[in-house]
Amino acid sequence: MVKRNHIVIIGGTACGPKAAARARRCDPAAKITIIEQGEDLSTATCGLPYYVSGVIENEDNMVARQPDFFKITMDMEVLTETRATAIDPKAHTVEIIDLETKQCSTIEYDKLVLATGSKPAVPDWEGKDLDGIFTITDIPDANAIRAYLSNLGNKKEVVIVGAGLIGLEMAEAFVSLECNVTILEALDRVLPTLLDSDIAAQVEKHLQDRGVRVICGRPVTGFQGDENGRVRKVMTRDTEFETDLVLLALGVRPEVTLAKDAGLTIGSTGGISANRYLQTSDPDIYAGGDCVENVNLITRKPVLAPMGSTANKHGRIIGTNVTGGKDTFPGVLGTAIVKVFDYNVGRVGLNESQARGAGYDTVISIVPSSEHATYYPGARDIIVKLVAEKSTGKLLGGQVAGPGDTAKRIDVLATALTFGATVEDLADIDLAYAPPYNSALDPLHNAANVIRNKQSGFARTLTPAEVKNKLEKGDRFVLLDVRSPLEWTVQRIEAEQVRLIPLTELRRRLGELSRDEEIVIFCRTSVRAYQAQRILDGADFKNVTFMDGSLDAWPYDTTSPDK
Amino acid sequence: MVKRNHIVIIGGTACGPKAAARARRCDPAAKITIIEQGEDLSTATCGLPYYVSGVIENEDNMVARQPDFFKITMDMEVLTETRATAIDPKAHTVEIIDLETKQCSTIEYDKLVLATGSKPAVPDWEGKDLDGIFTITDIPDANAIRAYLSNLGNKKEVVIVGAGLIGLEMAEAFVSLECNVTILEALDRVLPTLLDSDIAAQVEKHLQDRGVRVICGRPVTGFQGDENGRVRKVMTRDTEFETDLVLLALGVRPEVTLAKDAGLTIGSTGGISANRYLQTSDPDIYAGGDCVENVNLITRKPVLAPMGSTANKHGRIIGTNVTGGKDTFPGVLGTAIVKVFDYNVGRVGLNESQARGAGYDTVISIVPSSEHATYYPGARDIIVKLVAEKSTGKLLGGQVAGPGDTAKRIDVLATALTFGATVEDLADIDLAYAPPYNSALDPLHNAANVIRNKQSGFARTLTPAEVKNKLEKGDRFVLLDVRSPLEWTVQRIEAEQVRLIPLTELRRRLGELSRDEEIVIFCRTSVRAYQAQRILDGADFKNVTFMDGSLDAWPYDTTSPDK
Repeated sequence: MVKRNHIVIIGGTACGPKAAARARRCDPAAKITIIEQGEDLSTATCGLPYYVSGVIENEDNMVARQPDFFKITMDMEVLTETRATAIDPKAHTVEIIDLETKQCSTIEYDKLVLATGSKPAVPDWEGKDLDGIFTITDIPDANAIRAYLSNLGNKKEVVIVGAGLIGLEMAEAFVSLECNVTILEALDRVLPTLLDSDIAAQVEKHLQDRGVRVICGRPVTGFQGDENGRVRKVMTRDTEFETDLVLLALGVRPEVTLAKDAGLTIGSTGGISANRYLQTSDPDIYAGGDCVENVNLITRKPVLAPMGSTANKHGRIIGTNVTGGKDTFPGVLGTAIVKVFDYNVGRVGLNESQARGAGYDTVISIVPSSEHATYYPGARDIIVKLVAEKSTGKLLGGQVAGPGDTAKRIDVLATALTFGATVEDLADIDLAYAPPYNSALDPLHNAANVIRNKQSGFARTLTPAEVKNKLEKGDRFVLLDVRSPLEWTVQRIEAEQVRLIPLTELRRRLGELSRDEEIVIFCRTSVRAYQAQRILDGADFKNVTFMDGSLDAWPYDTTSPDK
Repeated sequence: MVKRNHIVIIGGTACGPKAAARARRCDPAAKITIIEQGEDLSTATCGLPYYVSGVIENEDNMVARQPDFFKITMDMEVLTETRATAIDPKAHTVEIIDLETKQCSTIEYDKLVLATGSKPAVPDWEGKDLDGIFTITDIPDANAIRAYLSNLGNKKEVVIVGAGLIGLEMAEAFVSLECNVTILEALDRVLPTLLDSDIAAQVEKHLQDRGVRVICGRPVTGFQGDENGRVRKVMTRDTEFETDLVLLALGVRPEVTLAKDAGLTIGSTGGISANRYLQTSDPDIYAGGDCVENVNLITRKPVLAPMGSTANKHGRIIGTNVTGGKDTFPGVLGTAIVKVFDYNVGRVGLNESQARGAGYDTVISIVPSSEHATYYPGARDIIVKLVAEKSTGKLLGGQVAGPGDTAKRIDVLATALTFGATVEDLADIDLAYAPPYNSALDPLHNAANVIRNKQSGFARTLTPAEVKNKLEKGDRFVLLDVRSPLEWTVQRIEAEQVRLIPLTELRRRLGELSRDEEIVIFCRTSVRAYQAQRILDGADFKNVTFMDGSLDAWPYDTTSPDK
């Protein structure tokens, strides 16, 4: 009789159950064991902020599959409330402990899968163990936050430490639960590892419009509690913030203790090192999900990608490979998307600062657009920022934010980046067009063409931050607004450098401008500003640029003088 | 003094104005003339069905740019209500007639752009000139339809001839105007040149659910009118349909009269032949938009692509090239999307019948899904059909339909097809995931993996049509429903071959099935059916398949016996 292949999987959230299910489908005869320290398998941890807010009403909806499904239908052994405590790679064994009975035992494996996930990063701050300070990684955490909140009075102050994905999702959850929310971020902007400051500024503005106090560049130093050991204050170097509840949302770190103790190679990122078959330094041990490091497809460098999407892809590949198949994982693009109240915020590839950090000479475009034809009702706005390599036009990344459909554009960019597209390639893709879905040219087409216009020398720009900086320095230049008088009435940039000459009057009013002075043009989205720049170019003006994205991308103050 | 380059553009809808604007930005000094036979430039013809229905309320919204914009701001000569009647390529001249004054004149050009568009196909049917028979290509057509309808009584019968994009969009418009709508389509399904019958059947079902009578395979033979010359009947070979208004929506034909008369090469599709610079057989004459033929990027064969999206891309490329630049158009994917009431219906690349017709050995998947995580509220359904080459896994095309977000998936597929992606590539793309936007695996990932499962021999399927055919022939086989008893109560396929064994009970009830009989398994979406197939495979059953897409892809009758 042939010995049954015994596949042991440690971790039951996303990668683990997926690997188990795939392995079962590939090999109906294999023996499969899943070890999970919690009560449930397949919990929808990405939905936790929506479970806290009550958008997802029922706890049952947070568990995709009951353990019995894996036991009975999938014919697996399922050890919940069981922790793996050690691996002996040589002996091919795993030590486990039943968390209820405290009984220890040893199981043998032929192939082992590490899907140990990640744990929240928590610095060693003073007071970090006070009551009312939470992290959120599982359903018990979510229930604890809900319970703690329900015991507070009506006026609830919440401080979220960290303006990453979970921090922003939880900000919305807490606001919907009628809390006053303050976000403290140590770095200079929200979503600092994901977005450039220009796009982050748009997101921050939206958060503040929705009543969230956002304070960036303010590292936390510790917490103070009351006599009952409940958190009351969040301390920074020079201020303190009163609070009733604190959420630590400082990102996650790969959980690699077992792997490290077993002598497996840990990569420079802190994640378990794995080859493209997701095999660790021990060929009989595979690793996937949050605990493993991935290759960034643009830089080819190792990165962490703690995402449910990646974990599920890993799971399928591992399930194939532990049953004798050969499937490979190519890598990740750092794709992320997050709902921030009415804003949809996405990013993929490298942002401008990452691209420069990686040594690329970059060219960017910032293009505000409608999500579909403006003449079709209900079109919402988005801003697209593209980053490309200057010499080749190779696309490096994109960021999209706004109330409109950003997910579609991020996914198109993810696909284009996967295949090494240039901006020229992107400009010509035959995307789907009908008025309820898009404009004849997609915002990505336009954003790609703006970069091509810059490459050909037709378009020359300053970013909003550069213009703001010139205004603050008191530079002598003309900041030329080419919008209509009506638009000027409703909203304008207030500065002595600003002049209004509507685009429609520009050709006949050229005499009002000097050919040698510096002129920076803007309108609402930069379509007219670019046209104006080309008119001035054609009339032999020597020092003309326009502002990337114009007023729609201007995150600073404007005035509405005639309102 | 250098002679100014004179660029003459014939046609002012989409490609023409875009070419003009781009040419102006590339060359501020060029002389640019636009000739348009209508009153307006830049009309949003793709929005006409929504203007007829009143979704777009204001006629002004249908015109993106007033002629004055092109005259004053863009410094062009604009000849509206002017028709070009002949081109002399040797002399580099165009004959024109002012449609108001009937005055003829000749203009010289250095570069000529043909953006003459298309015209509706109208067969030479008896009675086709009766009052109340319309086509729709411009705002006057739309106004005429609205006026004619408003003179009819309360009970308005409308017959639409042709179930293409315009036919379906107009069906929704007429229903919203409280008409009884019948669609007559000569071929065997709706959107016959775009969709395969399995996806078309879903769309047809939705149309009928929304009160539209759809009759396929019924070619029209002519029309009969009353004593006032108003249409009263639509005739087919064996029936007649009473009607108050007829819309002919049989697609469009490229308008190539001028090009043909000038001796330019016309391609096999009937469109003007152009190289990748969009240059015709005369190097000083360019052509773009509906009047030109394109290359299909999958088959590399010439095709027509009368789409506003393509016309705008053409316009930019032509604007570059007529001013001394060198830009190229790679080709099209036949991408299309259409709103059909609450269904979003898209397609890209080759459908299964086109792929087979082009000589490919195909493998397909049909995958019903939710548009995003089901535990996040509001998830709507879509069905994805992918077509790939069997030997290589090269993606050939996709179709997506349903109330959910199809546009995103079509655009991802368009991008993947542009770069020659395989299903393996598609399965690994790092698409954006968060519960409000997607599931951890996108429906496209799942659809790609189903094809990979078929290629590896793990998954074996019959299409719903094949299953239906077996039932109708009275084949002996077991049609095994593995859903839950509750689902069975709500809806089931009624046939003596059908048996219910829920997936959760399958392993212990294997004895109820015979290892040698043919078993075809289904559930709701085929996730459980595939699992069941693998369980039976593992238990040495010899003749087991499952149904592609299961009940969610089953367009035929079901019963709800216990309701």
